[in-house]
Amino acid sequence: MPRFALKVEYHGGPFSGWQRQRDQPSVQGAIEAALARLEPGAHTIAAAGRTDAGVHALGQVAHCDLSRDWAPFRLMEALNYHLKPQPVAIVDCAAVAPNWHARFSAQERRYSFRLLMRRAPATHDAGLVWQVPHMLDLAAMQEGATHLVGHHDFTTFRSSICQSASPVKTLDMLEIRDVAGQGGPELGFELRARSFLHNQVRSIVGTLERVGRGAWAPQDVRRALEARNRAACGPVCPPQGLYLAEAVYPEDPFTRGALADQAAPARKS
Amino acid sequence: MPRFALKVEYHGGPFSGWQRQRDQPSVQGAIEAALARLEPGAHTIAAAGRTDAGVHALGQVAHCDLSRDWAPFRLMEALNYHLKPQPVAIVDCAAVAPNWHARFSAQERRYSFRLLMRRAPATHDAGLVWQVPHMLDLAAMQEGATHLVGHHDFTTFRSSICQSASPVKTLDMLEIRDVAGQGGPELGFELRARSFLHNQVRSIVGTLERVGRGAWAPQDVRRALEARNRAACGPVCPPQGLYLAEAVYPEDPFTRGALADQAAPARKS
Repeated sequence: MPRFALKVEYHGGPFSGWQRQRDQPSVQGAIEAALARLEPGAHTIAAAGRTDAGVHALGQVAHCDLSRDWAPFRLMEALNYHLKPQPVAIVDCAAVAPNWHARFSAQERRYSFRLLMRRAPATHDAGLVWQVPHMLDLAAMQEGATHLVGHHDFTTFRSSICQSASPVKTLDMLEIRDVAGQGGPELGFELRARSFLHNQVRSIVGTLERVGRGAWAPQDVRRALEARNRAACGPVCPPQGLYLAEAVYPEDPFTRGALADQAAPARKS
Repeated sequence: MPRFALKVEYHGGPFSGWQRQRDQPSVQGAIEAALARLEPGAHTIAAAGRTDAGVHALGQVAHCDLSRDWAPFRLMEALNYHLKPQPVAIVDCAAVAPNWHARFSAQERRYSFRLLMRRAPATHDAGLVWQVPHMLDLAAMQEGATHLVGHHDFTTFRSSICQSASPVKTLDMLEIRDVAGQGGPELGFELRARSFLHNQVRSIVGTLERVGRGAWAPQDVRRALEARNRAACGPVCPPQGLYLAEAVYPEDPFTRGALADQAAPARKS
Protein backbone atom coordinates (compact mmCIF):
# COMPACT_ATOMS: atom_id res chain seq x y z
CA MET A 1 0.00 0.00 0.00
CA PRO A 2 1.35 3.44 -0.86
CA ARG A 3 2.22 5.50 2.21
CA PHE A 4 1.87 9.28 2.35
CA ALA A 5 3.27 11.85 4.74
CA LEU A 6 0.91 14.72 5.58
CA LYS A 7 1.93 18.07 7.04
CA VAL A 8 -0.98 19.26 9.14
CA GLU A 9 -1.92 22.69 10.50
CA TYR A 10 -4.79 22.99 12.97
CA HIS A 11 -6.51 25.18 15.51
CA GLY A 12 -6.75 23.08 18.66
CA GLY A 13 -9.70 24.97 20.12
CA PRO A 14 -12.57 22.71 18.99
CA PHE A 15 -10.73 19.44 19.59
CA SER A 16 -10.11 17.20 22.59
CA GLY A 17 -6.57 16.84 21.23
CA TRP A 18 -4.82 14.98 18.46
CA GLN A 19 -5.70 11.46 19.54
CA ARG A 20 -8.91 9.78 18.43
CA GLN A 21 -11.44 9.39 21.23
CA ARG A 22 -14.89 7.94 21.36
CA ASP A 23 -17.57 10.67 21.35
CA GLN A 24 -15.06 13.54 21.36
CA PRO A 25 -13.89 15.53 18.35
CA SER A 26 -10.18 14.94 17.68
CA VAL A 27 -7.82 15.99 14.92
CA GLN A 28 -6.84 12.39 14.20
CA GLY A 29 -10.51 11.44 13.98
CA ALA A 30 -11.22 14.33 11.60
CA ILE A 31 -8.43 13.32 9.21
CA GLU A 32 -9.32 9.61 9.39
CA ALA A 33 -12.93 10.48 8.56
CA ALA A 34 -11.75 12.51 5.56
CA LEU A 35 -9.60 9.56 4.41
CA ALA A 36 -12.65 7.31 4.64
CA ARG A 37 -14.43 9.62 2.18
CA LEU A 38 -11.61 8.94 -0.31
CA GLU A 39 -11.19 5.22 0.29
CA PRO A 40 -13.99 3.54 2.26
CA GLY A 41 -13.05 1.52 5.32
CA ALA A 42 -11.21 2.12 8.59
CA HIS A 43 -8.08 4.29 8.58
CA THR A 44 -5.53 4.65 11.35
CA ILE A 45 -2.93 7.36 11.07
CA ALA A 46 0.17 7.96 13.20
CA ALA A 47 1.60 11.37 14.08
CA ALA A 48 4.87 12.91 15.22
CA GLY A 49 3.30 14.40 18.36
CA ARG A 50 0.10 13.74 20.24
CA THR A 51 -1.02 17.24 21.16
CA ASP A 52 -3.40 17.85 24.09
CA ALA A 53 -6.81 19.46 24.02
CA GLY A 54 -6.60 23.08 22.87
CA VAL A 55 -3.00 22.81 21.60
CA HIS A 56 -2.43 24.01 18.03
CA ALA A 57 -0.16 22.80 15.25
CA LEU A 58 1.66 24.61 12.48
CA GLY A 59 3.58 21.59 11.22
CA GLN A 60 2.28 18.36 12.74
CA VAL A 61 3.32 15.41 10.58
CA ALA A 62 1.24 12.27 10.13
CA HIS A 63 1.29 9.33 7.74
CA CYS A 64 -1.45 7.28 6.18
CA ASP A 65 -1.64 4.16 4.01
CA LEU A 66 -3.93 4.14 1.00
CA SER A 67 -4.63 1.56 -1.68
CA ARG A 68 -4.57 3.97 -4.62
CA ASP A 69 -1.40 5.61 -5.81
CA TRP A 70 -2.57 9.19 -5.28
CA ALA A 71 -0.77 12.17 -6.74
CA PRO A 72 0.24 14.05 -3.55
CA PHE A 73 -1.30 17.32 -4.73
CA ARG A 74 -4.63 15.61 -5.49
CA LEU A 75 -4.63 13.82 -2.14
CA MET A 76 -4.00 17.09 -0.29
CA GLU A 77 -6.79 18.83 -2.18
CA ALA A 78 -9.26 16.01 -1.62
CA LEU A 79 -8.53 15.82 2.11
CA ASN A 80 -8.86 19.57 2.53
CA TYR A 81 -12.18 19.44 0.71
CA HIS A 82 -13.54 16.85 3.13
CA LEU A 83 -12.02 18.47 6.23
CA LYS A 84 -13.96 21.70 5.71
CA PRO A 85 -15.24 23.54 7.71
CA GLN A 86 -13.12 22.15 10.52
CA PRO A 87 -9.96 24.22 11.25
CA VAL A 88 -7.64 21.46 10.04
CA ALA A 89 -5.61 21.87 6.84
CA ILE A 90 -3.22 19.58 5.04
CA VAL A 91 -0.53 22.06 4.02
CA ASP A 92 1.81 19.58 2.30
CA CYS A 93 1.77 15.95 1.24
CA ALA A 94 4.38 13.54 -0.13
CA ALA A 95 4.75 9.87 -1.03
CA VAL A 96 7.13 8.12 1.38
CA ALA A 97 8.68 4.68 1.72
CA PRO A 98 6.48 1.95 3.27
CA ASN A 99 8.74 1.81 6.35
CA TRP A 100 8.77 5.56 6.90
CA HIS A 101 6.96 6.44 10.14
CA ALA A 102 5.73 9.88 11.20
CA ARG A 103 6.40 9.13 14.86
CA PHE A 104 9.32 6.71 14.92
CA SER A 105 11.31 8.27 12.06
CA ALA A 106 11.18 11.75 13.62
CA GLN A 107 14.46 12.85 15.17
CA GLU A 108 13.35 16.19 16.55
CA ARG A 109 10.18 18.01 17.60
CA ARG A 110 9.91 21.79 17.70
CA TYR A 111 7.31 23.56 19.77
CA SER A 112 6.58 27.26 19.96
CA PHE A 113 4.60 29.14 22.58
CA ARG A 114 2.98 32.57 22.37
CA LEU A 115 2.58 34.58 25.57
CA LEU A 116 0.78 37.95 25.48
CA MET A 117 1.52 40.39 28.31
CA ARG A 118 -1.30 42.91 28.57
CA ARG A 119 -4.41 43.68 30.54
CA ALA A 120 -6.78 44.43 27.64
CA PRO A 121 -8.30 41.17 26.36
CA ALA A 122 -6.89 39.72 23.14
CA THR A 123 -9.22 40.20 20.15
CA HIS A 124 -7.68 38.78 16.94
CA ASP A 125 -5.44 36.45 18.96
CA ALA A 126 -8.07 35.19 21.41
CA GLY A 127 -7.55 31.44 21.83
CA LEU A 128 -4.15 31.65 20.12
CA VAL A 129 -2.04 33.02 22.98
CA TRP A 130 -1.68 32.64 26.73
CA GLN A 131 -2.47 36.05 28.12
CA VAL A 132 -1.12 37.31 31.44
CA PRO A 133 -2.27 40.72 32.75
CA HIS A 134 1.18 41.93 33.80
CA MET A 135 4.60 42.60 32.34
CA LEU A 136 7.31 39.94 32.76
CA ASP A 137 11.06 40.27 33.21
CA LEU A 138 12.36 38.66 30.02
CA ALA A 139 16.02 38.63 31.12
CA ALA A 140 15.14 36.77 34.33
CA MET A 141 13.11 34.22 32.35
CA GLN A 142 15.98 33.73 29.91
CA GLU A 143 18.34 33.16 32.83
CA GLY A 144 15.93 30.67 34.39
CA ALA A 145 15.61 28.87 31.05
CA THR A 146 19.36 28.18 30.83
CA HIS A 147 19.05 25.73 33.75
CA LEU A 148 16.72 23.51 31.72
CA VAL A 149 18.71 23.18 28.51
CA GLY A 150 20.64 19.91 28.17
CA HIS A 151 20.36 16.31 29.36
CA HIS A 152 18.29 16.14 32.59
CA ASP A 153 15.85 14.11 34.60
CA PHE A 154 12.67 16.15 33.94
CA THR A 155 10.46 14.39 36.52
CA THR A 156 9.51 17.80 37.94
CA PHE A 157 8.28 18.93 34.53
CA ARG A 158 6.13 16.01 33.44
CA SER A 159 2.53 15.23 34.20
CA SER A 160 1.64 12.41 36.54
CA ILE A 161 -0.03 10.55 33.66
CA CYS A 162 3.02 10.76 31.35
CA GLN A 163 3.60 7.38 29.69
CA SER A 164 7.22 7.89 28.70
CA ALA A 165 9.47 5.05 29.87
CA SER A 166 12.07 7.47 31.23
CA PRO A 167 11.91 11.05 32.58
CA VAL A 168 15.41 11.68 31.23
CA LYS A 169 15.37 13.84 28.10
CA THR A 170 17.69 16.21 26.29
CA LEU A 171 16.28 19.67 25.74
CA ASP A 172 18.36 21.02 22.85
CA MET A 173 16.91 24.50 22.71
CA LEU A 174 14.80 26.76 24.91
CA GLU A 175 14.79 30.33 23.70
CA ILE A 176 12.51 33.18 24.67
CA ARG A 177 12.37 36.36 22.65
CA ASP A 178 10.57 39.66 22.58
CA VAL A 179 8.64 39.11 19.33
CA ALA A 180 8.26 42.75 18.26
CA GLY A 181 11.59 43.82 19.78
CA GLN A 182 9.85 46.61 21.67
CA GLY A 183 9.77 45.25 25.21
CA GLY A 184 6.45 43.49 24.58
CA PRO A 185 3.63 42.81 24.51
CA GLU A 186 4.35 39.34 23.07
CA LEU A 187 6.97 36.80 24.14
CA GLY A 188 7.75 33.87 21.84
CA PHE A 189 9.21 30.61 23.18
CA GLU A 190 10.96 28.09 20.97
CA LEU A 191 11.81 24.60 22.24
CA ARG A 192 13.55 21.74 20.48
CA ALA A 193 14.18 18.15 21.59
CA ARG A 194 14.23 14.66 20.16
CA SER A 195 11.06 14.09 22.15
CA PHE A 196 9.12 15.72 24.97
CA LEU A 197 7.40 14.39 28.08
CA HIS A 198 3.67 14.88 28.59
CA ASN A 199 2.98 18.50 29.64
CA GLN A 200 6.72 19.26 29.59
CA VAL A 201 6.44 22.46 27.55
CA ARG A 202 3.46 23.82 29.48
CA SER A 203 5.17 22.97 32.80
CA ILE A 204 8.30 24.82 31.69
CA VAL A 205 6.43 27.88 30.43
CA GLY A 206 4.26 28.03 33.57
CA THR A 207 7.36 27.86 35.75
CA LEU A 208 9.24 30.52 33.78
CA GLU A 209 6.24 32.83 34.01
CA ARG A 210 6.68 32.70 37.80
CA VAL A 211 10.27 33.80 37.30
CA GLY A 212 9.17 36.56 34.94
CA ARG A 213 6.82 38.08 37.43
CA GLY A 214 9.35 37.93 40.23
CA ALA A 215 7.73 35.21 42.34
CA TRP A 216 10.69 32.89 41.70
CA ALA A 217 14.36 33.74 41.25
CA PRO A 218 16.00 32.36 38.08
CA GLN A 219 18.02 29.84 40.12
CA ASP A 220 14.80 28.49 41.67
CA VAL A 221 14.31 26.76 38.31
CA ARG A 222 17.45 24.71 38.89
CA ARG A 223 16.25 23.80 42.40
CA ALA A 224 12.92 22.67 40.96
CA LEU A 225 14.66 20.56 38.31
CA GLU A 226 17.01 18.98 40.86
CA ALA A 227 14.12 18.14 43.18
CA ARG A 228 12.94 15.56 40.60
CA ASN A 229 9.51 15.97 42.11
CA ARG A 230 6.33 16.99 40.33
CA ALA A 231 5.28 19.02 43.38
CA ALA A 232 8.30 21.31 42.88
CA CYS A 233 7.01 22.49 39.48
CA GLY A 234 5.34 25.82 38.86
CA PRO A 235 1.77 25.76 37.56
CA VAL A 236 1.14 24.11 34.17
CA CYS A 237 0.15 26.96 31.86
CA PRO A 238 -2.98 26.77 29.65
CA PRO A 239 -2.78 25.07 26.23
CA GLN A 240 -3.92 27.83 23.89
CA GLY A 241 -0.48 29.44 23.43
CA LEU A 242 1.19 26.16 22.48
CA TYR A 243 1.98 25.11 18.89
CA LEU A 244 3.59 21.95 17.55
CA ALA A 245 5.70 23.88 15.05
CA GLU A 246 7.68 21.22 13.24
CA ALA A 247 8.80 17.60 13.18
CA VAL A 248 12.26 16.99 11.76
CA TYR A 249 13.32 13.82 9.90
CA PRO A 250 16.72 12.60 8.72
CA GLU A 251 15.51 13.44 5.22
CA ASP A 252 12.76 16.02 4.78
CA PRO A 253 9.90 14.05 3.19
CA PHE A 254 8.34 17.22 1.77
CA THR A 255 11.17 18.46 -0.46
CA ARG A 256 9.35 16.98 -3.45
CA GLY A 257 5.91 17.37 -1.89
CA ALA A 258 2.62 18.63 -3.22
CA LEU A 259 3.61 22.27 -2.95
CA ALA A 260 6.27 21.78 -5.62
CA ASP A 261 3.37 21.46 -8.07
CA GLN A 262 2.35 25.07 -7.48
CA ALA A 263 4.00 27.23 -10.11
CA ALA A 264 4.35 30.99 -10.07
CA PRO A 265 2.04 32.81 -12.50
CA ALA A 266 3.24 33.95 -15.89
CA ARG A 267 3.78 37.68 -15.87
CA LYS A 268 1.82 39.84 -18.28
CA SER A 269 3.62 42.88 -19.59
CA MET B 1 -16.78 67.63 30.48
CA PRO B 2 -13.48 65.74 30.47
CA ARG B 3 -12.64 64.25 27.07
CA PHE B 4 -10.76 60.98 26.63
CA ALA B 5 -8.99 59.44 23.65
CA LEU B 6 -9.38 55.67 23.32
CA LYS B 7 -7.14 53.40 21.24
CA VAL B 8 -9.32 50.51 20.11
CA GLU B 9 -8.47 47.07 18.75
CA TYR B 10 -11.25 44.90 17.35
CA HIS B 11 -12.09 41.85 15.30
CA GLY B 12 -14.52 43.06 12.65
CA GLY B 13 -16.11 39.66 12.07
CA PRO B 14 -19.19 39.93 14.31
CA PHE B 15 -19.90 43.58 13.50
CA SER B 16 -21.74 45.41 10.74
CA GLY B 17 -18.87 47.91 10.88
CA TRP B 18 -17.72 50.74 13.11
CA GLN B 19 -20.78 52.93 12.77
CA ARG B 20 -23.78 52.55 15.07
CA GLN B 21 -26.81 51.10 13.29
CA ARG B 22 -30.26 50.25 14.48
CA ASP B 23 -30.67 46.48 15.06
CA GLN B 24 -27.13 45.62 13.91
CA PRO B 25 -24.11 45.03 16.14
CA SER B 26 -21.48 47.74 15.61
CA VAL B 27 -18.20 48.57 17.31
CA GLN B 28 -19.34 52.11 18.03
CA GLY B 29 -22.54 50.77 19.57
CA ALA B 30 -20.61 48.28 21.73
CA ILE B 31 -18.34 50.99 23.15
CA GLU B 32 -21.20 53.43 23.67
CA ALA B 33 -23.12 50.73 25.55
CA ALA B 34 -20.07 50.11 27.76
CA LEU B 35 -19.81 53.86 28.45
CA ALA B 36 -23.48 53.89 29.47
CA ARG B 37 -22.65 51.26 32.11
CA LEU B 38 -20.14 53.71 33.61
CA GLU B 39 -22.17 56.90 33.32
CA PRO B 40 -25.89 56.41 32.56
CA GLY B 41 -27.35 58.24 29.59
CA ALA B 42 -26.69 58.47 25.87
CA HIS B 43 -23.11 58.55 24.63
CA THR B 44 -21.91 59.43 21.14
CA ILE B 45 -18.31 58.78 20.25
CA ALA B 46 -16.35 59.86 17.18
CA ALA B 47 -13.58 57.83 15.50
CA ALA B 48 -10.64 58.37 13.18
CA GLY B 49 -11.97 55.92 10.59
CA ARG B 50 -15.38 54.39 9.95
CA THR B 51 -14.48 50.82 9.07
CA ASP B 52 -16.85 48.65 7.04
CA ALA B 53 -18.43 45.34 8.04
CA GLY B 54 -15.79 42.69 8.67
CA VAL B 55 -12.85 45.13 8.69
CA HIS B 56 -10.56 44.88 11.72
CA ALA B 57 -8.66 47.47 13.73
CA LEU B 58 -5.35 47.37 15.52
CA GLY B 59 -5.25 51.07 16.39
CA GLN B 60 -8.59 52.74 15.76
CA VAL B 61 -8.81 55.96 17.77
CA ALA B 62 -12.04 57.34 19.23
CA HIS B 63 -12.93 60.01 21.76
CA CYS B 64 -15.66 60.24 24.37
CA ASP B 65 -16.88 62.88 26.80
CA LEU B 66 -17.62 61.90 30.38
CA SER B 67 -18.76 63.87 33.40
CA ARG B 68 -16.35 62.29 35.89
CA ASP B 69 -12.64 62.94 35.78
CA TRP B 70 -11.59 59.30 35.28
CA ALA B 71 -8.05 58.10 35.71
CA PRO B 72 -7.25 56.82 32.18
CA PHE B 73 -6.14 53.41 33.43
CA ARG B 74 -9.34 52.94 35.44
CA LEU B 75 -11.49 54.03 32.49
CA MET B 76 -9.72 51.56 30.19
CA GLU B 77 -10.17 48.72 32.69
CA ALA B 78 -13.84 49.51 33.28
CA LEU B 79 -14.63 49.69 29.56
CA ASN B 80 -12.84 46.42 28.85
CA TYR B 81 -14.79 44.78 31.67
CA HIS B 82 -18.10 45.83 30.14
CA LEU B 83 -17.05 45.08 26.55
CA LYS B 84 -16.44 41.38 27.34
CA PRO B 85 -16.97 38.94 25.69
CA GLN B 86 -17.13 40.98 22.48
CA PRO B 87 -13.82 41.07 20.54
CA VAL B 88 -13.29 44.79 21.21
CA ALA B 89 -10.50 45.98 23.50
CA ILE B 90 -9.45 49.43 24.65
CA VAL B 91 -5.67 49.10 24.46
CA ASP B 92 -4.80 52.63 25.58
CA CYS B 93 -6.60 55.65 26.99
CA ALA B 94 -5.60 59.26 27.68
CA ALA B 95 -7.17 62.52 28.80
CA VAL B 96 -7.19 65.06 25.95
CA ALA B 97 -8.14 68.71 25.52
CA PRO B 98 -11.88 69.47 25.08
CA ASN B 99 -11.30 70.56 21.47
CA TRP B 100 -9.28 67.46 20.50
CA HIS B 101 -11.19 65.37 17.98
CA ALA B 102 -10.44 61.75 17.00
CA ARG B 103 -11.57 62.36 13.44
CA PHE B 104 -10.83 66.00 12.68
CA SER B 105 -7.51 66.20 14.55
CA ALA B 106 -6.08 63.14 12.75
CA GLN B 107 -3.52 64.01 10.11
CA GLU B 108 -2.87 60.51 8.79
CA ARG B 109 -4.52 57.10 8.65
CA ARG B 110 -2.56 53.88 8.22
CA TYR B 111 -4.13 50.70 6.95
CA SER B 112 -2.60 47.27 6.58
CA PHE B 113 -3.84 44.32 4.58
CA ARG B 114 -2.98 40.63 4.93
CA LEU B 115 -3.16 38.43 1.84
CA LEU B 116 -2.52 34.68 2.14
CA MET B 117 -1.48 32.83 -1.03
CA ARG B 118 -2.19 29.14 -0.61
CA ARG B 119 -4.72 26.50 -1.50
CA ALA B 120 -5.12 24.83 1.91
CA PRO B 121 -7.71 26.70 3.96
CA ALA B 122 -6.45 29.05 6.69
CA THR B 123 -6.93 27.66 10.20
CA HIS B 124 -5.54 30.05 12.86
CA ASP B 125 -5.89 32.99 10.48
CA ALA B 126 -9.37 32.22 9.18
CA GLY B 127 -11.30 35.51 9.03
CA LEU B 128 -8.09 37.50 9.50
CA VAL B 129 -6.65 37.29 5.96
CA TRP B 130 -7.85 37.40 2.36
CA GLN B 131 -6.90 34.04 0.96
CA VAL B 132 -6.25 33.44 -2.75
CA PRO B 133 -5.57 29.89 -3.97
CA HIS B 134 -2.64 30.80 -6.24
CA MET B 135 0.78 32.41 -6.06
CA LEU B 136 1.11 36.08 -7.05
CA ASP B 137 3.95 37.94 -8.73
CA LEU B 138 5.03 40.34 -6.00
CA ALA B 139 7.38 42.38 -8.22
CA ALA B 140 4.57 43.01 -10.73
CA MET B 141 2.24 44.11 -7.93
CA GLN B 142 4.90 46.45 -6.54
CA GLU B 143 5.37 47.96 -9.99
CA GLY B 144 1.61 48.40 -10.38
CA ALA B 145 1.42 50.03 -6.95
CA THR B 146 3.88 52.78 -7.89
CA HIS B 147 1.28 54.26 -10.26
CA LEU B 148 -1.08 54.93 -7.34
CA VAL B 149 1.26 56.69 -4.95
CA GLY B 150 0.92 60.48 -4.92
CA HIS B 151 -1.77 63.08 -5.55
CA HIS B 152 -4.45 61.69 -7.86
CA ASP B 153 -8.12 61.68 -8.73
CA PHE B 154 -9.10 58.27 -7.29
CA THR B 155 -12.61 58.13 -8.80
CA THR B 156 -11.79 54.66 -10.19
CA PHE B 157 -10.95 53.41 -6.71
CA ARG B 158 -13.89 54.65 -4.66
CA SER B 159 -17.28 53.11 -4.11
CA SER B 160 -20.34 54.62 -5.72
CA ILE B 161 -21.73 55.46 -2.27
CA CYS B 162 -18.58 57.29 -1.11
CA GLN B 163 -19.57 60.52 0.64
CA SER B 164 -16.25 62.32 0.32
CA ALA B 165 -16.58 65.80 -1.21
CA SER B 166 -13.70 65.18 -3.60
CA PRO B 167 -12.16 62.08 -5.20
CA VAL B 168 -8.75 63.75 -5.16
CA LYS B 169 -6.51 62.32 -2.45
CA THR B 170 -2.81 61.96 -1.76
CA LEU B 171 -1.66 58.40 -1.17
CA ASP B 172 1.61 58.85 0.72
CA MET B 173 2.60 55.20 0.94
CA LEU B 174 1.62 51.92 -0.70
CA GLU B 175 4.09 49.15 0.05
CA ILE B 176 3.72 45.43 -0.43
CA ARG B 177 6.11 43.00 1.17
CA ASP B 178 6.73 39.30 1.46
CA VAL B 179 6.04 38.97 5.20
CA ALA B 180 8.21 35.94 5.92
CA GLY B 181 10.81 36.86 3.28
CA GLN B 182 10.52 33.38 1.77
CA GLY B 183 8.50 34.05 -1.36
CA GLY B 184 5.22 33.61 0.52
CA PRO B 185 2.75 32.53 1.58
CA GLU B 186 1.75 35.90 3.08
CA LEU B 187 1.87 39.34 1.50
CA GLY B 188 1.50 42.42 3.71
CA PHE B 189 0.25 45.75 2.34
CA GLU B 190 0.82 49.04 4.12
CA LEU B 191 -1.00 52.21 3.03
CA ARG B 192 -0.78 55.72 4.44
CA ALA B 193 -2.75 58.85 3.58
CA ARG B 194 -4.26 61.87 5.28
CA SER B 195 -7.62 60.26 4.52
CA PHE B 196 -9.04 57.52 2.33
CA LEU B 197 -12.11 57.25 0.13
CA HIS B 198 -14.79 54.64 0.80
CA ASN B 199 -13.55 51.21 -0.35
CA GLN B 200 -10.31 52.76 -1.62
CA VAL B 201 -7.98 50.24 0.05
CA ARG B 202 -10.03 47.22 -0.93
CA SER B 203 -10.35 48.52 -4.51
CA ILE B 204 -6.59 48.98 -4.70
CA VAL B 205 -5.78 45.54 -3.25
CA GLY B 206 -8.34 43.82 -5.49
CA THR B 207 -6.85 45.54 -8.55
CA LEU B 208 -3.26 44.70 -7.60
CA GLU B 209 -4.22 41.05 -7.08
CA ARG B 210 -5.22 41.01 -10.76
CA VAL B 211 -1.76 42.26 -11.61
CA GLY B 212 -0.17 39.66 -9.33
CA ARG B 213 -1.87 36.79 -11.09
CA GLY B 214 -1.00 38.08 -14.52
CA ALA B 215 -4.49 39.11 -15.64
CA TRP B 216 -3.41 42.75 -15.76
CA ALA B 217 -0.05 44.26 -16.65
CA PRO B 218 1.42 46.68 -14.07
CA GLN B 219 0.80 49.66 -16.37
CA ASP B 220 -2.89 48.73 -16.61
CA VAL B 221 -3.16 50.19 -13.09
CA ARG B 222 -2.19 53.60 -14.45
CA ARG B 223 -4.76 53.27 -17.23
CA ALA B 224 -7.43 52.40 -14.68
CA LEU B 225 -6.49 55.40 -12.53
CA GLU B 226 -6.49 57.75 -15.51
CA ALA B 227 -9.90 56.50 -16.65
CA ARG B 228 -11.42 58.20 -13.56
CA ASN B 229 -14.24 55.71 -13.91
CA ARG B 230 -15.44 53.25 -11.30
CA ALA B 231 -16.02 50.65 -14.03
CA ALA B 232 -12.28 50.59 -14.81
CA CYS B 233 -11.46 49.27 -11.35
CA GLY B 234 -10.56 45.67 -10.56
CA PRO B 235 -12.84 43.80 -8.16
CA VAL B 236 -13.16 45.11 -4.61
CA CYS B 237 -11.48 42.48 -2.42
CA PRO B 238 -13.17 41.08 0.70
CA PRO B 239 -12.90 42.93 4.03
CA GLN B 240 -11.37 40.30 6.31
CA GLY B 241 -7.73 41.05 5.41
CA LEU B 242 -8.07 44.77 6.13
CA TYR B 243 -6.92 46.46 9.35
CA LEU B 244 -7.11 50.08 10.42
CA ALA B 245 -3.61 50.03 11.86
CA GLU B 246 -3.07 53.52 13.20
CA ALA B 247 -4.32 57.08 13.30
CA VAL B 248 -1.64 59.75 13.55
CA TYR B 249 -2.09 63.12 15.30
CA PRO B 250 0.12 66.22 15.43
CA GLU B 251 0.89 65.23 19.01
CA ASP B 252 0.47 61.59 20.05
CA PRO B 253 -2.28 61.69 22.70
CA PHE B 254 -1.13 58.39 24.19
CA THR B 255 2.44 59.29 25.20
CA ARG B 256 1.22 59.73 28.77
CA GLY B 257 -1.65 57.27 28.42
CA ALA B 258 -2.93 54.48 30.60
CA LEU B 259 -0.16 52.08 29.60
CA ALA B 260 2.41 54.31 31.27
CA ASP B 261 0.88 53.14 34.58
CA GLN B 262 2.02 49.57 33.94
CA ALA B 263 5.36 49.11 35.63
CA ALA B 264 7.81 46.26 35.06
CA PRO B 265 7.92 43.72 37.90
CA ALA B 266 10.58 43.87 40.56
CA ARG B 267 13.15 41.17 39.97
CA LYS B 268 13.73 38.56 42.63
CA SER B 269 17.27 37.33 42.94
